[in-house]
Amino acid sequence: MGKLTYGAGIWAFGQFVDRYAGDGYGPTRTSQQMIEDAAKVPGLKHLDINVPFDIPERTAVEIKKMLDDNGLICRATTPHIYMREYVKGSFTNPDTKLRSQTKDRVREAIAAAEILGATYVKFWPGQDGFDFPLQANYLQIWDYTINGIRDLANENPKVQFAIEYKCKEPRVRMTLATAAKTLLAISEMKVDNVGIVMDFGHSLMAQETPAESLLLIHRHGKLVSAELNDNWRGWDDDLPVASVHLFETIEYMLALRSINWTDPVLLDQFPFREDPVRALTRSIEIITYLEEVCDRVDIAALNQAQNSQDALAAQAVIWDALMQEKRFTR
Amino acid sequence: MGKLTYGAGIWAFGQFVDRYAGDGYGPTRTSQQMIEDAAKVPGLKHLDINVPFDIPERTAVEIKKMLDDNGLICRATTPHIYMREYVKGSFTNPDTKLRSQTKDRVREAIAAAEILGATYVKFWPGQDGFDFPLQANYLQIWDYTINGIRDLANENPKVQFAIEYKCKEPRVRMTLATAAKTLLAISEMKVDNVGIVMDFGHSLMAQETPAESLLLIHRHGKLVSAELNDNWRGWDDDLPVASVHLFETIEYMLALRSINWTDPVLLDQFPFREDPVRALTRSIEIITYLEEVCDRVDIAALNQAQNSQDALAAQAVIWDALMQEKRFTR
Amino acid sequence: MGKLTYGAGIWAFGQFVDRYAGDGYGPTRTSQQMIEDAAKVPGLKHLDINVPFDIPERTAVEIKKMLDDNGLICRATTPHIYMREYVKGSFTNPDTKLRSQTKDRVREAIAAAEILGATYVKFWPGQDGFDFPLQANYLQIWDYTINGIRDLANENPKVQFAIEYKCKEPRVRMTLATAAKTLLAISEMKVDNVGIVMDFGHSLMAQETPAESLLLIHRHGKLVSAELNDNWRGWDDDLPVASVHLFETIEYMLALRSINWTDPVLLDQFPFREDPVRALTRSIEIITYLEEVCDRVDIAALNQAQNSQDALAAQAVIWDALMQEKRFTR
Amino acid sequence: MGKLTYGAGIWAFGQFVDRYAGDGYGPTRTSQQMIEDAAKVPGLKHLDINVPFDIPERTAVEIKKMLDDNGLICRATTPHIYMREYVKGSFTNPDTKLRSQTKDRVREAIAAAEILGATYVKFWPGQDGFDFPLQANYLQIWDYTINGIRDLANENPKVQFAIEYKCKEPRVRMTLATAAKTLLAISEMKVDNVGIVMDFGHSLMAQETPAESLLLIHRHGKLVSAELNDNWRGWDDDLPVASVHLFETIEYMLALRSINWTDPVLLDQFPFREDPVRALTRSIEIITYLEEVCDRVDIAALNQAQNSQDALAAQAVIWDALMQEKRFTR
Repeated sequence: MGKLTYGAGIWAFGQFVDRYAGDGYGPTRTSQQMIEDAAKVPGLKHLDINVPFDIPERTAVEIKKMLDDNGLICRATTPHIYMREYVKGSFTNPDTKLRSQTKDRVREAIAAAEILGATYVKFWPGQDGFDFPLQANYLQIWDYTINGIRDLANENPKVQFAIEYKCKEPRVRMTLATAAKTLLAISEMKVDNVGIVMDFGHSLMAQETPAESLLLIHRHGKLVSAELNDNWRGWDDDLPVASVHLFETIEYMLALRSINWTDPVLLDQFPFREDPVRALTRSIEIITYLEEVCDRVDIAALNQAQNSQDALAAQAVIWDALMQEKRFTR
Repeated sequence: MGKLTYGAGIWAFGQFVDRYAGDGYGPTRTSQQMIEDAAKVPGLKHLDINVPFDIPERTAVEIKKMLDDNGLICRATTPHIYMREYVKGSFTNPDTKLRSQTKDRVREAIAAAEILGATYVKFWPGQDGFDFPLQANYLQIWDYTINGIRDLANENPKVQFAIEYKCKEPRVRMTLATAAKTLLAISEMKVDNVGIVMDFGHSLMAQETPAESLLLIHRHGKLVSAELNDNWRGWDDDLPVASVHLFETIEYMLALRSINWTDPVLLDQFPFREDPVRALTRSIEIITYLEEVCDRVDIAALNQAQNSQDALAAQAVIWDALMQEKRFTR
Repeated sequence: MGKLTYGAGIWAFGQFVDRYAGDGYGPTRTSQQMIEDAAKVPGLKHLDINVPFDIPERTAVEIKKMLDDNGLICRATTPHIYMREYVKGSFTNPDTKLRSQTKDRVREAIAAAEILGATYVKFWPGQDGFDFPLQANYLQIWDYTINGIRDLANENPKVQFAIEYKCKEPRVRMTLATAAKTLLAISEMKVDNVGIVMDFGHSLMAQETPAESLLLIHRHGKLVSAELNDNWRGWDDDLPVASVHLFETIEYMLALRSINWTDPVLLDQFPFREDPVRALTRSIEIITYLEEVCDRVDIAALNQAQNSQDALAAQAVIWDALMQEKRFTR
Repeated sequence: MGKLTYGAGIWAFGQFVDRYAGDGYGPTRTSQQMIEDAAKVPGLKHLDINVPFDIPERTAVEIKKMLDDNGLICRATTPHIYMREYVKGSFTNPDTKLRSQTKDRVREAIAAAEILGATYVKFWPGQDGFDFPLQANYLQIWDYTINGIRDLANENPKVQFAIEYKCKEPRVRMTLATAAKTLLAISEMKVDNVGIVMDFGHSLMAQETPAESLLLIHRHGKLVSAELNDNWRGWDDDLPVASVHLFETIEYMLALRSINWTDPVLLDQFPFREDPVRALTRSIEIITYLEEVCDRVDIAALNQAQNSQDALAAQAVIWDALMQEKRFTR
């Protein structure tokens, strides 16, 4: 079976901060350092890159050269629409000026994407939502979200956009929270160039079954990017692949195969306490191993078990592939 | 402001069972007893009634007479498509015969609805989903769901159907889990007579904000029924209204006002350890009181606060209405 | 390394009911049928048996004979203190008479345990707790719990008792919710013959790390029984072993080894939609396989990784054992 | 009834950062600015103060003067044992040197507490725990926790220490996660001067019932501080008091009354998107109002309802106090 290719968010190689360790988990890091580290991960070729870059004077041309020098490709650009000025929202900010400024920031990311050769521009509206019961006019926020993204999509018809949904953090409750809600929002936009970044961990957090969400998004023609990582379900821990959920990861990989996914799989990790090069290398090693497991899965037997909803038989097929032998009673 | 009217699921007056107390929380109860008890709840006028009825030989005509005798109205019928034979699914059962039988059972509920004068026929596909990772072919289940309901909708174009979504229980994971996923399924059906029963408690369980989901469903023209109750977020505890979530309940009621809801509000409660008449009476008393609170809400001030996402101001408007005085700093 | 032995709750072979499928998942079953089915599971030797038995006239002597005839051993008896009459609590029931009756029921289970040769009498106070905010006098419930169990422990100093903690279901909130809270309650009892039944799934539900809880309970000398199964964390789904959480299961098994556990491991499953004999056979097959995985774990390397909190190295040691080869970078 | 007094963590008036908005929610702030802002909150008198202070050269004597000048009192000092160097733990750090350094940092906080007149020194071991399954030697971490704190308690017998438990964040899983687990750890320490800071929001996160935990901690003589705030249960949102959970807050306040709590109630808020002075003022206004509600509660009727576990009656007593009239059927 086909070999997957890999990418990551450039932030995996940056400095991590949290609300307590305000001094950061490690020193600050330049774009140059982050890109060089990314290049050290065997198999990692693609980067999702934040715009603006590390320092105000940094240009996309410089970043492009760094990528080229390190044999890396820009997969996407992600505008920073969730920093200080956007704490009350980006597309949904109550202040007209900030909603407008959000678009400007996206336009910067579009311009950078062109120079960098990115496949899509990602929206991660992490501050769009609310914090308290009764704080928000939900339909107004919904309209702002749809209108803001639609305007940009119409304005840039040749650019592929993709929304990364998430149910919370940093906003206490985020508007584009689930796969289905995001598909619904996109259907209201009535544009062709807005799709979805489907992050395994965000899906777990949203009480979804990641493989199911991947397939539903694909069924609606909106799958732009597939991302792997792991967490404990309650929060976006951004751990290495299959740290916790092995079977769901295998299921997700089988779903990717079923739709003949050939684009990169992105790794969205925050290795707060691990060496990033090592943590991402590990994820790729694990996926590579799980590709072999998937190769060994008896798909016909799996289909048969699923078609009769025989849970024990379905899991036995996977165990066979893991154990490399048939052991369990049928 | 307008007075809400009230209904309930007839099951609130029945015997409760759980997987441990298999001998039931109290004795079994006849339709006659359940209807008579429902009539004892001041303000309760509408019932959602399960089909088949309590005993095989019971007819809809008999039930209709019982309702009339007790001054009650049938709001909806709910076919029993989640009993023993449907443990592996109703619309999504792997067995063609059982999928077909599901439709027959729905047809019984349609026939009963006609006799009883019900406004809609409810689907609560509590067994449609899966239990284990890797057990299900998600798109097959999705197709079965959509096809089954679409067939019935096309076959009965004058009947209004409504899906009550829920994310789990009894199936470990249910397919029509959230408001947005259900809207998505309905949009795929391309029929006009399938809408949604929006249950406050199911929405909490699904990590939704109930008022937001209500408004989104209404925006898409699919709101058929609104139901109130409460729980602790992790499970469908079916407690009396506002037992836990006062502010979300007020927010939900304000959302009902904003869409000029004039149909009954249904109470979906399972008073395992309380007297049902008393437990439902209490819910209506609470809603009645909260209607007065809503009357006192300064809507202009609330809108202004929400338009600027001023959470403290928005909550202060609600506190004013609760406390019947202006106390808090602005 | 040592071979584990296995047991199960007899209820795994009974009829399942839920609050919707009140007609039950399958027909009712006699003790005879349940015991015969248990005997069909290869490797299963021990049963935790509910008292009273299936029919009022059934005696412990009859059950003992059934067990003997089928080569089975009674591991524990579990008094039914969570049926209809106990819906407002057993040890904590507000009614003195019911608190007293709870003790009588436990005494029946003690008498049965003697005849059946059970190692311990289990308390599963599933109705002891509360449902709503403000309903309960928490310290009163706490006192009732401690006093009731202490009285029985003092009255029967040669009997080993064990509490199975759980955070909810059937009671909306249960008092003996977590390992630590139960240890605290036991320490207040100041008796020597009350310990803990540590159920993997209940531990997941309670947001615990099962291996950690097992070790803490053992550290305090209170580990009476270890039980395996699995769930999705939010509810007590009682699925087969490692259906969802493979790594936590391996970790739990390594913890059992570290304390030299030689007593049976009990399987607490509710195979609502599967054949019980098959579902329990599968769990034993999986544990047997995972025993081999544990045999292959390089414990010295694991210790070293854990001693330096090197998460990637620790997980690599487990992957080595799973993959039967060293692949991942260190 | 008695008037509560109020305090807050000084951090409520500082700059907030999260892992995305690394540029911070607003500018950095000096100790002087934070203390002056705290003084602007009517009723706020006590501060929990982090050590080290805002800048390395800042002395406790200077802070004391700032407090005096602003009419404020130091309630507690909290050593910064969760910053960059402690990302793999403070008391539980695998590195002996860092475990030792943790103690030095605590000693600084003790010295500051003496100068500032603080009542207790708080441990918030936010980095003590683990991130992945299989990463940790749980008993080793448990021992490190107990030994580290015991050593400090023995070394400083006249200092009152208090542990603030929390189940996660920043560490993915924290060791001192719940009230009962912390009581268990303290019982193992066998010292008299270590108690507990009981934070309402941490208790919600840990799936506890806050009033119950408060009472259990008090029953064991370990309640050093009581803190109020609110969240949505899944995460430590640190919202203003009763933003979400009104009934649980009232229940908590009634529990404080039942133990005759006269020490300050601390507000642990992170007003990311609100003005801190306003957000804390609001919390005090809400508690002040709820004190009046508590004054109106018919305690005898509440006790009677609780003694019979009559949930509807118990909640009716609270509704009476909220509505200032008797309305609901009994």
